[in-house]
Amino acid sequence: MKAKDTAPNAEKISRNPFPNSTKIYVKGIMHPQIRVAMREIALSDTKEVITGKSIPNEPVTVYDTSGPYTDPNKEIDIYKGLERIREPWILERGDVDYLDEFTSEYCNQRLNDTSLDHMRFSLLKKPLRAKKGRNVTQLHYAKRGIITPEMEYIAIRENQRIDEMTEIIKQHKGEHFGAAIPEKITPEFVRDEVARGRAVIPSNINHPEAEPMILGRNFLVKINANIGNSAVTSSIEEEVEKAVWACRWGADNIMDLSTGENIHETREWIIRNSPVPVGTVPIYQALEKVNGVAEDLTWEIFRDTLIEQAEQGVDYFTIHAGVLLRYVPMTAKRVTGIVSRGGSIMAKWCLAHHKENFIYTHFEDICEILKTYDVAFSLGDGLRPGSVADGNDAAQFAELETLGELTQIARKHEVQCFIEGPGHIPMHMIKENMEKQIAVCDEAPFYTLGPLTTDIAPGYDHITSGIGAAMIGWYGCAMLCYVTPKEHLGLPNKEDVRTGVVTYKLAAHAADLAKGHPGAQHRDNALSKARFEFRWEDQFNLGLDPELARAYHDETLPAEGAKIA
Amino acid sequence: MKAKDTAPNAEKISRNPFPNSTKIYVKGIMHPQIRVAMREIALSDTKEVITGKSIPNEPVTVYDTSGPYTDPNKEIDIYKGLERIREPWILERGDVDYLDEFTSEYCNQRLNDTSLDHMRFSLLKKPLRAKKGRNVTQLHYAKRGIITPEMEYIAIRENQRIDEMTEIIKQHKGEHFGAAIPEKITPEFVRDEVARGRAVIPSNINHPEAEPMILGRNFLVKINANIGNSAVTSSIEEEVEKAVWACRWGADNIMDLSTGENIHETREWIIRNSPVPVGTVPIYQALEKVNGVAEDLTWEIFRDTLIEQAEQGVDYFTIHAGVLLRYVPMTAKRVTGIVSRGGSIMAKWCLAHHKENFIYTHFEDICEILKTYDVAFSLGDGLRPGSVADGNDAAQFAELETLGELTQIARKHEVQCFIEGPGHIPMHMIKENMEKQIAVCDEAPFYTLGPLTTDIAPGYDHITSGIGAAMIGWYGCAMLCYVTPKEHLGLPNKEDVRTGVVTYKLAAHAADLAKGHPGAQHRDNALSKARFEFRWEDQFNLGLDPELARAYHDETLPAEGAKIA
Repeated sequence: MKAKDTAPNAEKISRNPFPNSTKIYVKGIMHPQIRVAMREIALSDTKEVITGKSIPNEPVTVYDTSGPYTDPNKEIDIYKGLERIREPWILERGDVDYLDEFTSEYCNQRLNDTSLDHMRFSLLKKPLRAKKGRNVTQLHYAKRGIITPEMEYIAIRENQRIDEMTEIIKQHKGEHFGAAIPEKITPEFVRDEVARGRAVIPSNINHPEAEPMILGRNFLVKINANIGNSAVTSSIEEEVEKAVWACRWGADNIMDLSTGENIHETREWIIRNSPVPVGTVPIYQALEKVNGVAEDLTWEIFRDTLIEQAEQGVDYFTIHAGVLLRYVPMTAKRVTGIVSRGGSIMAKWCLAHHKENFIYTHFEDICEILKTYDVAFSLGDGLRPGSVADGNDAAQFAELETLGELTQIARKHEVQCFIEGPGHIPMHMIKENMEKQIAVCDEAPFYTLGPLTTDIAPGYDHITSGIGAAMIGWYGCAMLCYVTPKEHLGLPNKEDVRTGVVTYKLAAHAADLAKGHPGAQHRDNALSKARFEFRWEDQFNLGLDPELARAYHDETLPAEGAKIA
Repeated sequence: MKAKDTAPNAEKISRNPFPNSTKIYVKGIMHPQIRVAMREIALSDTKEVITGKSIPNEPVTVYDTSGPYTDPNKEIDIYKGLERIREPWILERGDVDYLDEFTSEYCNQRLNDTSLDHMRFSLLKKPLRAKKGRNVTQLHYAKRGIITPEMEYIAIRENQRIDEMTEIIKQHKGEHFGAAIPEKITPEFVRDEVARGRAVIPSNINHPEAEPMILGRNFLVKINANIGNSAVTSSIEEEVEKAVWACRWGADNIMDLSTGENIHETREWIIRNSPVPVGTVPIYQALEKVNGVAEDLTWEIFRDTLIEQAEQGVDYFTIHAGVLLRYVPMTAKRVTGIVSRGGSIMAKWCLAHHKENFIYTHFEDICEILKTYDVAFSLGDGLRPGSVADGNDAAQFAELETLGELTQIARKHEVQCFIEGPGHIPMHMIKENMEKQIAVCDEAPFYTLGPLTTDIAPGYDHITSGIGAAMIGWYGCAMLCYVTPKEHLGLPNKEDVRTGVVTYKLAAHAADLAKGHPGAQHRDNALSKARFEFRWEDQFNLGLDPELARAYHDETLPAEGAKIA
């Protein structure tokens, strides 16, 4: 049973630091005010077998998505939200204004409803919006040659101080399938990739709490964790903790897919306390506003929802603009019809009115909204296959063509844009997805759900999909949307979130290794060396989940592997 | 703490059938005496939304490795062992004799040791051995054009009655990379593949309890589960249950890697009660016989161990014959030296004596032993990489060349032979392993451990390796050795075995789909149809782990996906 929604309890939020780790902050050079958060894992010494000498092992720096929660030196008050690190950067650009009040009608209704006071994040800031006629997207700046603090932050973050490594840096040459991964990520490279539309920095000016992160084929592969409550399960408190928890284990990004009541209030809590970008599917909330009747949706309700969410700070919107009226009949002979919730909503609307999808017809209007907050498009694949049988079919690829067309429109408006992909695809058909997406969408970043490589393992779909995710990440996919063990069966609890995130983190890392991302193999090498030398604690601490590894360890293992020669 | 070894308690052995499933037995045609075990899953009707009519769904037949344990009509007495289904087939060939006593000295020592009576499987049969000068391997028969009952059994089993399917048989064309997968597996095809050395039927004449199973690139991808107790954990009882349990979830094959005391007795219990082939690494037991001092190993001790195990019924031996003296120094600069236990033992022996590996020098003597029982070679990769850093290095590939040479010697003796492979390999370097193995070992079946695609996720190595396993299975690997969540950390318990087996089963199935194995997609289609129609019970029952899926299910899921058009 669902608990009544209230403000979360601060004590329920995970804050313990990772073992033997120090949070470090690397300063910017072009922008000396930036402090790029990383985690440094200290290692014990190697004991030389013959001489008995102790030889120190260099600490290992790792990419860290956990935000200030794992830094014991930071004070965190979830009732105030995280530090607004990007706020001065945004204000300095001089192209935004604080509004006196929120623009969305629905938002104001909620704010004026005193019955919601007990669950409200009360420290509301005024929303920011671009000054009239201005475009505040990272793409807009990039095209004008401006290297923003966000871009330099990302360059520093992606490199993980590989310049400073001296030990065990040996790495296999990767196979990147025509990607353009440089030896070192520079701020100028970040800018150039964003300018080309080949990378996206989800960075709503109203979510200054988030640490900048980039999606693109030439960067580290990222992962997304879906969270969100439903009409019948989970509370605001649980969802805030799930967000913090997902970031702890490695989520580069979260999507709040809440349904039911109090979506607006839940989202506020999540965004204010999220150190990573937050995405949503606005049509879910729009549908709640028309009591779940898809036919009753209107452009006006949808538009108000976009503004409502943009002023809260959502960093990207999944928009099912590619589900065109003429594509819907293409799904009739499928084994699993339309399985995307957003796709199904829009298909119903199109058929009921026998009209073209209003998200498609209003796409340029949406661009106008998004560019004033720097909300990125995540062009949803509403016709994605829901079974391997339906993989790579005509409906799926027809929609992809439309997403390619919309990508060009978004770029014309200088709105950041990436593309969602499947779904359920057998292994040998995955590559075709990546290749077609690169061709059709002109190298815009790809963001896939898995794909699941078989349908026969409910309860293990984090693994059936982890296989496909690792492969498509290798082929060039920029972000992998996690799947938890509960996929198809129920809503994930905290442990499911952890399992899903770690599974996807290892899949993304396997992809980084295979692509030959600079420095990616360093952590593997350090861990393997620790393993070989029976430095158990170092092995645990270098792993993605030190707690679990430690819990699984027992002393019965033989200690036989050895440097023989 | 380890319990004192005793005979197992029959009540501790899992026997419950799978839900809504019937064990069926398909008769042979060439060999009418054979009864091929399969599992048929009954499905509920589809309710047509508009007409309200009920439309029946065809039952689904699936490959079943669980043996008679899941057939409530079979009586099982673990103190007597399983029914010796192959015994009449073996005797009919007229080329074997029952021996009056066991040949191995060590075996007789153990049999005469009354202090072991309380833990002994007491219903010992006399061992079978080839008549003098005869070769009783399936390869030998195959080369003479003989289609054995084992071969017909396998043909029927691999097809899973796809001829009889009428519904949802749509399947994607696979990509098989030059394999020779036929539309339908015929007994003659099985014979031909065995004759070419491209497939192996592990089938010791002293393990007539096992249901015939084939390893080969043109057949369904198989999986192996390692079990076995150690000096400090687990009892005979637990290991017998682990064996039955592993088969229940889908192990096509188990390896008994027991160490410590009572290996001989433990193995007897396992073999007599195993419905699948059993492999071992004989050097582990030989090492126990010299109190763990590798330098004290001798050919004579090893030889006696091979005969001891062959007469118990071990179906294949992992033999580290490719660890040559001159290869050992090639591992000196590795991050993780030699991690194979068998490889490390033989490397120590070679260095200590500065002599060539006695398993290599006595390889033809071993062939003479193996052909008299039809024990297959699993040529071990003692120099497999233990970290991604060491993947595909000179030591690994040097050993592979030697395994290729030994394959030809085994074939000359008409002894069945397959090849073991890595290990830890980043994704982009996996294919090279398969291609080299096919070339160097002349298409002998490949049997890999994973490979693990990254080293940074201890506690999740069933997944890091499940990714690599699915890929190498697709590329042509015949059998995937499972990895459990405890890999590198501890010995797997029952739940770890289940997780490992199901993970590998799904990886193998993903490979079958990608290769386009005939009929492989049928189960996916049936499950997806059930999912789409909200036939929850059918969805659970068609999955690899119905229990877990059912446990994960909750009623909070929205029911939105729908056939719209």
